[in-house]
Amino acid sequence: MATAPRRVRRRVQRRVTVLAGGYGGAKMSHGLALASAARAAAGEASLDLSIIGNTGDDLEVHGLCVSPDLDTVMYTLSGWANESTGWGVRDETWSAKEMLDRYGAPTWFGLGDRDLATHLVRTQALLAGERLTQVTARLASALGCPATLLPMTDDTVRTELLVDGRWLEFQEYFVHRQHAADVAAVRHAGVDGASPTPEAFAALAAAELIVLAPSNPFVSIGTILAVPGLREAVAAAPAPVVAVSPIVGGAALRGPADRMLQTIAGREASAAGVVAHYRERYPGVVDAFVIDERDAPLADGIRDAGPEPVVILDTVMTDIAARERLGVAILERFLSAVPDAYH
Amino acid sequence: MATAPRRVRRRVQRRVTVLAGGYGGAKMSHGLALASAARAAAGEASLDLSIIGNTGDDLEVHGLCVSPDLDTVMYTLSGWANESTGWGVRDETWSAKEMLDRYGAPTWFGLGDRDLATHLVRTQALLAGERLTQVTARLASALGCPATLLPMTDDTVRTELLVDGRWLEFQEYFVHRQHAADVAAVRHAGVDGASPTPEAFAALAAAELIVLAPSNPFVSIGTILAVPGLREAVAAAPAPVVAVSPIVGGAALRGPADRMLQTIAGREASAAGVVAHYRERYPGVVDAFVIDERDAPLADGIRDAGPEPVVILDTVMTDIAARERLGVAILERFLSAVPDAYH
Repeated sequence: MATAPRRVRRRVQRRVTVLAGGYGGAKMSHGLALASAARAAAGEASLDLSIIGNTGDDLEVHGLCVSPDLDTVMYTLSGWANESTGWGVRDETWSAKEMLDRYGAPTWFGLGDRDLATHLVRTQALLAGERLTQVTARLASALGCPATLLPMTDDTVRTELLVDGRWLEFQEYFVHRQHAADVAAVRHAGVDGASPTPEAFAALAAAELIVLAPSNPFVSIGTILAVPGLREAVAAAPAPVVAVSPIVGGAALRGPADRMLQTIAGREASAAGVVAHYRERYPGVVDAFVIDERDAPLADGIRDAGPEPVVILDTVMTDIAARERLGVAILERFLSAVPDAYH
Repeated sequence: MATAPRRVRRRVQRRVTVLAGGYGGAKMSHGLALASAARAAAGEASLDLSIIGNTGDDLEVHGLCVSPDLDTVMYTLSGWANESTGWGVRDETWSAKEMLDRYGAPTWFGLGDRDLATHLVRTQALLAGERLTQVTARLASALGCPATLLPMTDDTVRTELLVDGRWLEFQEYFVHRQHAADVAAVRHAGVDGASPTPEAFAALAAAELIVLAPSNPFVSIGTILAVPGLREAVAAAPAPVVAVSPIVGGAALRGPADRMLQTIAGREASAAGVVAHYRERYPGVVDAFVIDERDAPLADGIRDAGPEPVVILDTVMTDIAARERLGVAILERFLSAVPDAYH
C-alpha cells in the first residue's frame, strides 16, 4: 500500500545582503553567517546571505588575477582565513615566494602557496571567458563558504589614490607603502564603463535587510557604491539599509579610514564623521546607523543632525563569538520579525 | 709611483655542448659541470658548458608554461633538484596542490610550491614577449646554474605518442598514464615550423666536444634532432659527437626507452640496439659511442657492425661522485688535450 505523500514544508530563508570590503566586512559577514547557523539550530529561519564585495583593490601579481577583498571574505567565512594577519590563508606556506625572491620577482604583495591556488584557478577561468562572478562562486563553494559571494561587477575597476600629487594604484599605496601617506582624493578607474552584475542587482532587490559593513567608506563601500546603478539599486531596494561605522573611539580599527575621513572628506575621525559623510555623500541611501558602544556619547549629536535612527552596539568583534553577537544583534534590531514575502 | 700594469692571462675555457632530455641528461650534464669545477681546482681549463634541452615535453598546467626537461636540468645543475624523485625541487612543499585539489582542478601533473615560482616567472616573461631562451637564462642564472641552458627552440613543439591508435600528448602518456602503454610511433607537432635558436647553433658550431646524453633516443634526443637544421648543425660541427647509451643491461635506467626501442624502432632493448638506432636513423652524426661496463660483452658486436669507436665506461651514476667520474672519463677520452683555437 502506497503511503500518502508527505507535505514538505520548506523553511523560508531570510534574505540579507551585505556590502563588504576586506577584513572588517569579512568579520561582519561572518557574524551574520554564524547568527544564521544559530537561528537554524534554534529552529528559526536561517539567512540566505549574499555579500557584494569590492573589486577595486584587485590587481595582477606574477601574471595572476588577485582579488584580495573577495578572498578575505571567502577565506573568513569558510574558516580558511589567517585570523592573526587578517589576510591570506591559515596554515600557509611561503615556498613560492621564497623562490620568487630568488628569481628577483617583486614580492612586496606576498602571495602564500595556498593562496596561489585560488589565483591560478581564477586567472585560468577568466582567461577562458568565465565571469568573475562565476569563478568566485565556484571557489567559494569548493571551500564551503556559507554565503553567496558576489563581486560588485564583472568589469575591471581599479581604485586609485591621490598621494603627494600622484595617483597611486590601491595596493601600491595600501600594501607597498603601508598606507602611511595622506590621501587627498580617491578615484575608481574604469568605473564609468562598469555595471553591477545581475546577481548583485537581484541580491539587493530581494533583500529584507541590507548592511553596509564596517569597511572603509571611501575605498571599500565607496567603491562598491561608485559602480553606476549600484547606489541607486541600494536606495531603491525595499529593505532597510543599515550602515555600521568602521570608526570606533575616533580611530579605524584597521586601515586608514580615520585619516581618509579627514584628508578626503574634511571631517573629524569619529563615528559622527562617518555618519555625516554617508548622509552627505549618499543622501537617501542609509536608513539607520550602528555605532559602537564606546561612541555612545556621540549618539545624541548624531541623532540631532539627521532623521535616521542610531543604534549602539558592541561592534569591535575581537573574537569569533563577538562576531556572532554582533550578527545576532543586527538581525534582532533590523530584520523584521515576519518575512515580507514567501519567495 | 704607478705600478707597471700586470698582464692578465685569461684562462681558455674548453667548450662542451650536451644534448639532454630529463633526469638522465641532467645527471650527465651535472657530471660534466662537476668535472669542470675539478679541472679548475686543479689549475686546468674549466668548461664553457652549454646544454641544449628538449622542450617537446613542455605543457600548460593551470595556465602556466611548464618546461619539465629544462627545469630538471636547471634544478639538478644548480643543486635544487629533488634527487629522490628525479623531478621537481628539493625541500618542496605542496600547499598549492592541496588547495587545487580542493578546487577540483586536475593535479595529476603535480607542481610543488617552489616549482610554481619557476613557472610563474617563465609564463609572465613569455606573455611579455621574452624568448624562452632568455627567460631560461635568467632563471638558471638566479639559481646559480653552472652551465648555459638552451632550449632547442623558442618555437612550440609538442611530442605526441601513438598509443592504441590514438595520439597522446607526451605528459598524458608519461605522467598521467605512467608510460605503461606501448608506443607505436612518435611525432613532434609543430616541429616543421620550428627553428633552433641562434644560441643553440652557436653552441654547436663552437663546441670542442658534443655529447648526446644518456636520454631517451626517441622523445628526448630524437626530439631535439627533429628540429629542422639542428641535426645538420650537429653533423656539421667540427667537434666529435659522442652518444652515451641510455640502456644498461638491457633496460632503461629510467623511463620507457627500452620498450620504445622495440615498439617504435623494432630493435632489441640493449646498448647494441641504441647504437644501431643512432647509426641508422642519424647516419654520419655520431662519431663515437659510450656503453656501460655492464654491457662490455656487447662491445665487439657493436664495433663489428660499424666504424665508430665504442668506449666502455661506468655510466650508471648512482650518486653525485659517479656523475663526476663519468664526466671526467668522457672529457679524458674525447676532449682533445690541446684546445683547437683560442677564442
